[in-house]
Amino acid sequence: MSHLDDPTAHHADTQRLEALSDGVFAIAITLLVIEIGVPHLDAGQGLGDALRHLWPSYFGYAVSFLTIGVLWLNHHQMFKDIARADHMVTVLNLLLLMCVSFIPFPTAVLADFLRDDDQRLGAVLVYGATFTSMALPFTVLWLWVIRHPRLIDEHVSSARLRSRTIRYLPGVVMYGLTLPLAYLNPWVSIVLFAAIPVFYLLPLNDASA
Amino acid sequence: MSHLDDPTAHHADTQRLEALSDGVFAIAITLLVIEIGVPHLDAGQGLGDALRHLWPSYFGYAVSFLTIGVLWLNHHQMFKDIARADHMVTVLNLLLLMCVSFIPFPTAVLADFLRDDDQRLGAVLVYGATFTSMALPFTVLWLWVIRHPRLIDEHVSSARLRSRTIRYLPGVVMYGLTLPLAYLNPWVSIVLFAAIPVFYLLPLNDASA
Amino acid sequence: MSHLDDPTAHHADTQRLEALSDGVFAIAITLLVIEIGVPHLDAGQGLGDALRHLWPSYFGYAVSFLTIGVLWLNHHQMFKDIARADHMVTVLNLLLLMCVSFIPFPTAVLADFLRDDDQRLGAVLVYGATFTSMALPFTVLWLWVIRHPRLIDEHVSSARLRSRTIRYLPGVVMYGLTLPLAYLNPWVSIVLFAAIPVFYLLPLNDASA
Amino acid sequence: MSHLDDPTAHHADTQRLEALSDGVFAIAITLLVIEIGVPHLDAGQGLGDALRHLWPSYFGYAVSFLTIGVLWLNHHQMFKDIARADHMVTVLNLLLLMCVSFIPFPTAVLADFLRDDDQRLGAVLVYGATFTSMALPFTVLWLWVIRHPRLIDEHVSSARLRSRTIRYLPGVVMYGLTLPLAYLNPWVSIVLFAAIPVFYLLPLNDASA
Repeated sequence: MSHLDDPTAHHADTQRLEALSDGVFAIAITLLVIEIGVPHLDAGQGLGDALRHLWPSYFGYAVSFLTIGVLWLNHHQMFKDIARADHMVTVLNLLLLMCVSFIPFPTAVLADFLRDDDQRLGAVLVYGATFTSMALPFTVLWLWVIRHPRLIDEHVSSARLRSRTIRYLPGVVMYGLTLPLAYLNPWVSIVLFAAIPVFYLLPLNDASA
Repeated sequence: MSHLDDPTAHHADTQRLEALSDGVFAIAITLLVIEIGVPHLDAGQGLGDALRHLWPSYFGYAVSFLTIGVLWLNHHQMFKDIARADHMVTVLNLLLLMCVSFIPFPTAVLADFLRDDDQRLGAVLVYGATFTSMALPFTVLWLWVIRHPRLIDEHVSSARLRSRTIRYLPGVVMYGLTLPLAYLNPWVSIVLFAAIPVFYLLPLNDASA
Repeated sequence: MSHLDDPTAHHADTQRLEALSDGVFAIAITLLVIEIGVPHLDAGQGLGDALRHLWPSYFGYAVSFLTIGVLWLNHHQMFKDIARADHMVTVLNLLLLMCVSFIPFPTAVLADFLRDDDQRLGAVLVYGATFTSMALPFTVLWLWVIRHPRLIDEHVSSARLRSRTIRYLPGVVMYGLTLPLAYLNPWVSIVLFAAIPVFYLLPLNDASA
Repeated sequence: MSHLDDPTAHHADTQRLEALSDGVFAIAITLLVIEIGVPHLDAGQGLGDALRHLWPSYFGYAVSFLTIGVLWLNHHQMFKDIARADHMVTVLNLLLLMCVSFIPFPTAVLADFLRDDDQRLGAVLVYGATFTSMALPFTVLWLWVIRHPRLIDEHVSSARLRSRTIRYLPGVVMYGLTLPLAYLNPWVSIVLFAAIPVFYLLPLNDASA
């Protein structure tokens, strides 16, 4: 079917995409806490010890929360410049959301096995692979959009598009690097997981434009 | 009570329906991950093996996610053309949402029993019956709307309505077919569950109009 | 602080109330399914039997879903006529939402003990008490509003207000009645729980105005 | 990148912040109920006794619900006066949401250990520390905004800003006080947790302006 009979349909499309996306981002970010179980105390164990023992859960919660938060910021900025969504944008966005809403699972896996010397590598690979899978449709979506100028708001300058590309491309590269680096030392990847969203939240990387 | 005292009430009705529906779609799609439990390792078992063993959970997650995603796309397109919601539309939409938000349960049933030769048929029937129950109010809602032209936006061409009907009708038929086909071979139905949303997401089936 | 410096603040208040309320309604309605656990099969037990055994969970899911759905419909209609929210409206609405988001718990209690002859009465009382507690702030909110005409949209006729009162008052009475009736026979209350939302969804009770 | 090419971008920023925030508030408030497990009856135990035994869970549910509700009210009022969000506002708001969506966990800890004389202090400290951590970015965000007048809506009087500051500052102080007070007597802090949101909801503290 042609879009010719409804010239405003495309803009409505991005509104819909953004509404569903906002819902999924907000829910995924809030569900993270469900994976942290209240500890059952063994005889003679104090609550303080038991709660301190859960530090990998808090770490995973904070890192996944900030990562989804940064992705949400980038997603909104990206869609500020996108005036129309074609079918490819819709499908890539759905794949992106499928990875975002999956994050509570690898977060729980990382938290459960972070202290386990035998399984740490596996848990880090699962976590890193999910984030890489999430960065991929995000990056491809942006590359698709800048190659199809009719999708872009006409008021957006090409300097701004370039600036976005420079901002988005390192994400997928850095998350991809956490996978081989984990074989060298899983802790390097773990530090990277935490550093990437913190880096994007530094004042240098003002995300409000 | 008559609507005569508030000519804009009807349009507000579809906005309300769409807001609640968007919320339910976004939450149901994001809750799917909760049903995937982090594995507890047996002695000598590796995390990789344990995670690979969960493949039916990932499969169910992806299929249910894409199915709800496609239904959400179709729901939004449908309501683009619906200008007014009468009581029947409200009730049918509520029944539709009741099936959508139920999906995490049959998804978990399918994931838990997909590998069990004795229970696979039962799990597939539960999954297929839920999807058929979901497609039914969706289809009846559309048939009701096109038989009550006052509910339809006046700018929508009858060619567009026909195109929607052609797009929506196969869904309920295909999901209905997964039930008898499961008695022949449950795997045929399982392949269909995955193929139906992928088919709707192919570029041929541009859903953006 | 006076509202005089911002004449539009009140209307913004109901928008905010409605946005949070819609979110809570949509999430509470979608969380109901989480309380239905996938059955673990005993040796020799079939999946079909195990799933049929869960019928109280499906019953509770459907009744609670439809009840929240009907309440959501009524809530939206009510707020169509409310132009301004004072502090009392805000607080009563918060109490209403506190009961709505509690519903998954008594639903799970009812499902778990519906078949237990010794505990059925207790489970029904918990379920009925929650719904009565929910109907109370809803009804008080409406009575407060119609006694403070400055809160009401000026275009709303007094006939319409009367019609709303006639529609809303029976709810709290009927839910209150499920409590003494449960002592006669819990099944009578159980039938009422299901009948009340179905009654509101009948075409006679067109809720779209 | 400069904002000069899009003078409306800033206002869009607060809309985005508010939409994500509303989602997180609504979801966190509704997830609280998931932490209340349906009791399993021991032989000879009645359902009534078992449910009464869960009173710390109901208490925690109500207190956390009202606290998040009051915070949501304050958050909305605050953002009524904020016309533009800079990077600091975005980051502080994200930290605030990270604490809000964490609340279901300390709520469950408090409920599980409230009756345990040995662990009560620890549970109260965890609960109070979470609320203090939540009040901190909220308060810093407001102090940041009033020191950067370009972020404030030009129609807001300085009397109104002062009134907000007087309203917001006691929160972080009172929550901070629950920590040392718990060492004197945990029950004092528990009473404070309940009293603070109830105080904000009293008619004296009309939050609608």
